[in-house]
Amino acid sequence: MAITTCIFDAYGTLFDVAAAARQAAQEPEFPHLIDNWATLANHWRLKQLQYTWLRAITGAHTNFWQVTQDGLDWAMEATGLSGDPQLRQRLLDLYWQLQAYEEVPNMLRRLKEAGMNTAILSNGSPDMLSGAVQSAGLSGVLDDVLSVESVGVFKPDSRVYDLVGARFACQPQEVLFVSSNGWDAAGASGYGFETAWVNRAAEPVDRLPSTPQHILSDLTSIPDLISS
Amino acid sequence: MAITTCIFDAYGTLFDVAAAARQAAQEPEFPHLIDNWATLANHWRLKQLQYTWLRAITGAHTNFWQVTQDGLDWAMEATGLSGDPQLRQRLLDLYWQLQAYEEVPNMLRRLKEAGMNTAILSNGSPDMLSGAVQSAGLSGVLDDVLSVESVGVFKPDSRVYDLVGARFACQPQEVLFVSSNGWDAAGASGYGFETAWVNRAAEPVDRLPSTPQHILSDLTSIPDLISS
Repeated sequence: MAITTCIFDAYGTLFDVAAAARQAAQEPEFPHLIDNWATLANHWRLKQLQYTWLRAITGAHTNFWQVTQDGLDWAMEATGLSGDPQLRQRLLDLYWQLQAYEEVPNMLRRLKEAGMNTAILSNGSPDMLSGAVQSAGLSGVLDDVLSVESVGVFKPDSRVYDLVGARFACQPQEVLFVSSNGWDAAGASGYGFETAWVNRAAEPVDRLPSTPQHILSDLTSIPDLISS
Repeated sequence: MAITTCIFDAYGTLFDVAAAARQAAQEPEFPHLIDNWATLANHWRLKQLQYTWLRAITGAHTNFWQVTQDGLDWAMEATGLSGDPQLRQRLLDLYWQLQAYEEVPNMLRRLKEAGMNTAILSNGSPDMLSGAVQSAGLSGVLDDVLSVESVGVFKPDSRVYDLVGARFACQPQEVLFVSSNGWDAAGASGYGFETAWVNRAAEPVDRLPSTPQHILSDLTSIPDLISS
């Protein structure tokens, strides 16, 4: 069955989640961040994800903005930065205007020119996603932005992936799902989507029940997967 | 309501999960492990846990022995050790005979002398747990070993914590649950157990909906919590 619909994870896939800490480290107010911004960014991301999974298992859902703040608070304490509320606020502000990876606008434009449906499917809350999409200038090349908030549970719960078929009236086999998160690509593959894992860091494939059909080093060649 | 029942997580709490990689690094067959055994152990543990959570969310349960092997395979590839099947086998063998932390036998003996019910509640499969308990000589000071295998889902799903009341005919408020995993202590606390988090690494408290009532640096003082 031919692919009609290309669905993208947002954080880590279209938007560089490490950009907030990297940019703050370049600002004169935060010289103490120069040496440990990468450690802070890693802790932040790891805890943010862990908290989404643990809340999905226990049914204790909250929105992604809360989980993002919770992860940051853990990460700042772990790196000895808890006493800097100005830094906390700056990092949170930057999270609403994350940079898109440089190949994103042209890649999405090519998909639209090929007649594809295009959308984001993300853990992010609608207001966070709206801010990021506008900041990165992607509104014109995305048909929709789907948030887990409409089902009240985080990925990889299957109710999240159900949102795609409900929005675009398509079968799972018509969907190419793209994520830089190996666990998200595995979940989507198990759901029945064709999946592409964007493995920028050259990490091992996750040992989960399903694996992605495509493994790419960045997003540039996504339109070629459709036409092939 | 007085505590009648003390329940312990196994891996990381009673048993030192880093001991397998640490011990292998001291063996003459594996000189290449001396510099990176801690990184290997960290990756192994992190992926093992991630896979339990992701399988709990997607309903793709398998036993903990499979997840332990999956986590090790990811970790060995990430540290450039995939080409060493002898090391893989040695690490897996050592995982069945993990050392207990040194204060464990005496602490459990004190609880039994105080008339407490004592048991393990673990993600581990029954045969893994049996091997570890026997290897550490703890059979005489534990009333039971409860495994998630009887409900077919991993922690922190509430069906796992239900096993305690079913076995000991007690209310959640009568249970002191002890774990070195912050997320497990948080899950048990949200379930209604009184919880103690053993925070050997002095990590920040997890920002989850529930928090442990007690935070300890090791297990020595557990019997004092009961009598106070």
